[in-house]
Amino acid sequence: MDTPDESDPWSISKPALYRELQRSQQNDETIVLATIVNVEGSAYRRPGAKMLISADNESLGAVTAGCLEEPVVDLASTVREEERPQVETFDLMDDEWGLGLGCNGIIDILLEPVDASIEPVLAALHDRRPVTVVTAVRSDNPAVSIGARTVISTNGDVSNSHDRSQLPKSVVDAVKTTAETIQNSGKATICDISTSGGDVQVFIDSIEPSPRLLLFGNQNDVHPVSRFGRQVGFEVIVASARGSRSSSSDFPCAHEVYATHPTDIHELTDERTYVVLMSHNLLDDQLALESLQFAPDVPYIGLMGPQERFEQICDKLAKDGTAFTADQLERVSTPVGLDLGGGEPMQIALSIVSEVLAIHNERTGGRLKDKKGPIHDRVSIGTDGS
Amino acid sequence: MDTPDESDPWSISKPALYRELQRSQQNDETIVLATIVNVEGSAYRRPGAKMLISADNESLGAVTAGCLEEPVVDLASTVREEERPQVETFDLMDDEWGLGLGCNGIIDILLEPVDASIEPVLAALHDRRPVTVVTAVRSDNPAVSIGARTVISTNGDVSNSHDRSQLPKSVVDAVKTTAETIQNSGKATICDISTSGGDVQVFIDSIEPSPRLLLFGNQNDVHPVSRFGRQVGFEVIVASARGSRSSSSDFPCAHEVYATHPTDIHELTDERTYVVLMSHNLLDDQLALESLQFAPDVPYIGLMGPQERFEQICDKLAKDGTAFTADQLERVSTPVGLDLGGGEPMQIALSIVSEVLAIHNERTGGRLKDKKGPIHDRVSIGTDGS
Repeated sequence: MDTPDESDPWSISKPALYRELQRSQQNDETIVLATIVNVEGSAYRRPGAKMLISADNESLGAVTAGCLEEPVVDLASTVREEERPQVETFDLMDDEWGLGLGCNGIIDILLEPVDASIEPVLAALHDRRPVTVVTAVRSDNPAVSIGARTVISTNGDVSNSHDRSQLPKSVVDAVKTTAETIQNSGKATICDISTSGGDVQVFIDSIEPSPRLLLFGNQNDVHPVSRFGRQVGFEVIVASARGSRSSSSDFPCAHEVYATHPTDIHELTDERTYVVLMSHNLLDDQLALESLQFAPDVPYIGLMGPQERFEQICDKLAKDGTAFTADQLERVSTPVGLDLGGGEPMQIALSIVSEVLAIHNERTGGRLKDKKGPIHDRVSIGTDGS
Repeated sequence: MDTPDESDPWSISKPALYRELQRSQQNDETIVLATIVNVEGSAYRRPGAKMLISADNESLGAVTAGCLEEPVVDLASTVREEERPQVETFDLMDDEWGLGLGCNGIIDILLEPVDASIEPVLAALHDRRPVTVVTAVRSDNPAVSIGARTVISTNGDVSNSHDRSQLPKSVVDAVKTTAETIQNSGKATICDISTSGGDVQVFIDSIEPSPRLLLFGNQNDVHPVSRFGRQVGFEVIVASARGSRSSSSDFPCAHEVYATHPTDIHELTDERTYVVLMSHNLLDDQLALESLQFAPDVPYIGLMGPQERFEQICDKLAKDGTAFTADQLERVSTPVGLDLGGGEPMQIALSIVSEVLAIHNERTGGRLKDKKGPIHDRVSIGTDGS
C-alpha cells in the first residue's frame, strides 16, 4: 500500500507542505513561497493558502484551482533571481494574464524567497504551538519594505530574523490585538496601518499546528480512515492495542504508530487530537473511553458501532461507579460519522473523516446549499486593525 | 500520480471488485466468492458485502473489519477443492473461531467457486442494468442444493446457468415480489420458503450498476474529486471542455475522459449520473447547466462557486427566456458539498464527494449521532417472502 499524500503535488495537505518547507530549509535549498494575502470577490482558495516553488520550478500546493499556478511559477523565477519578496495582483476578471477565465476574483499573492524568517514558524509547529506571522505586503513608508516580517508567539514574544528586515514596533503594536484575536484560528487577514512615514499594509497569518487524528484499533478498517485522514491534512496516529500489529509498515498511511494499552490512550492526546475508537472489542473500547476522561481537552471521541453499544458501555461503567458528565457525553460521537448512507469500507471511512473535519471546523456537516451566509468564515476585523 | 483503487485490496470499491471478477472469468481463473448473506446483531458490514479469494489465497474486498478475513480465506481452499458452494456461520460472540472478539454479531457467509452463474450479472453491469440474484443458502429439500441459483433481470426474465443447479420454479415464484421490491436498491435479504420437499432459505441480492460521477472541468481541482470519487465506488468520468487536457493520462483517477463541448454534456449522463460542474468558467458552467435540462433523470448537479454565481447564471438564462422549473432548481446543489468548513483542495473534494454519496443514498449528510433509528436501512420484508 502506498502512502498517499505525495501522490498529487498540487493537492498536498498543509502539514505535508510544511514538512517539505522544513526539509528544504535543512538542505539549504532555494525555494520560493507563494501565499494568498487577499481575495476580493470569489476564489477557490482563501487568504493564507500556500504554494512552494522549487529551484527547478516544481510546484507543491495550490493557490487557485489551477489557473494561476503557471504564472506564479514564472514569477517565482524573478523573485528567486532578485532575492526580494514581491506582491502581485491577479485580476481574474480581465485578460491581463491572458486567461479570460470569467472568474470573479481579484487575488493578491505574496512571493518570497524562503529564508530564516520561516524558522520560528517551523519551530512552533514542531512544538505544536500556534504562531502568527505579520508581513508587510504594501508600503508607502520608505523605512518598511515589502516582506518586512515579525513573528508573534502565543506568549506575545516577537521573533525577528536577521535575513529579513523587521516591522517597526509601531506597526507591530498596531496589529497586536488583531494578531491575538486570530491566533490559533488558522485564519488570515490584512490590516492597513497609518505610520508617520506613510501607509503600510500587513498580512497577518495565523498558523496553527496540524490537527491530529488518533485511531485506536489494529484491524483493516484503520487503513482507509488513516488514508483519508492523512489526505485531508490530519497528522494520523494509530494506537494499536495488544501489540499485534504496531509497526509503521503495518499502517503505512499513519505518521506515527504506537503499541499501547487502552488505559493509556489519553497520553497520546492534546487539545487538537480527534480520537476514533475502532478496536471492535467492547472491553478495549470501554477502557479507552475511561482513559480519555483524563484528557478533558480532547474535542471529539468517535466510537465505532451502534448507539446501543455505547449505552452498554455506559451501563457497565455506571455499575462500577463511573458516570460520564454531560460534557463528556457531548464529545462522544456514536454512531461515528456523517450520515452518508454508505456501507463499504471506504464509504464508512469517508463518513468518519468528514465528521472529524466538520467538528474540527465547528460545523455539523449538513449540505452547504441549505446553509445561510458565506461558505467560509470571514475574519470580521476592521482593516485598520481595530 | 497513481490510480488509487488497487492500493489497498481489502478496502477496494464494489465496481473494482466486479472488474476483478470480470477479469478472472475471462482468464478462466479459479476463484472463490464470499458473500455475507445474513447478520444478526451488529457487524461492520451488511448482507451483500463481498470478498474474492484467488487460487493463491490472495483476497480482495471485505466481509468484516478484518477479523474474519483469515478464516474465510482458509475456508475458501476447502470450497475450491470440493468445488461446492457452502454457507458458514461465524458467531463473533463465542470463541468457536478462536477470536474472542467481544463483538455482537452472528454472520452467515456464502462461499462459492465462481462459475458461469456470474455471467448474467457481469453482462447486466456491463449494460448498466440492475439484476437480482437468488441463491439457496439453506435447504431441507433434497432437490435443492446450497448454491442453487436463479438470476432475475429487470424485465422479469430468469437466467439459469448450466454450471449451477437452478432453483425450482415454486421457489422463484415465492420470492418474485420480494426480488422486485429490492431490485435496483443494492440491498440484500434472506427469505424462508416452505416447499413440498422441505424448507429452503434463499439469499436475494440486488445488484445495481455503479453510480457515475461526471466532473465537468479540466483544472487541477478535478484530481482530488476524481480520486475520492473513485475510492468510494463511483465510476468517474471527466468531461474536459475546450479539448485542452482530455487524455486519460491527464486524469489518471478517472475511468473515462472525454473532450466535450458544454452544450453536449447531457449526452454523457444517465439516471445514475451525479454531475459536478467545476469548469471555473461562468459561461461554460452556464452552457452545461442548460444542456442538463435535456437530462431530467440526472439526480444531482453540483455547481462549484458561491450561491450568487448560480443566481447570476439564472438571471442570464431568464433574460434569454430560459427559466428553471422548481424540480430543476431542486437538484442543483450550490455551493456544492457538505458543510465541513475546510478550504484546502482535498478538503473541498472530501466535502463534494461526501455530498454526492449522501445524495446517492438519499441522505442529507448531518451527524449520525443526531439521527434517530438504525444507521443502515433494513430491508423490511417478511422472512417468508411476503
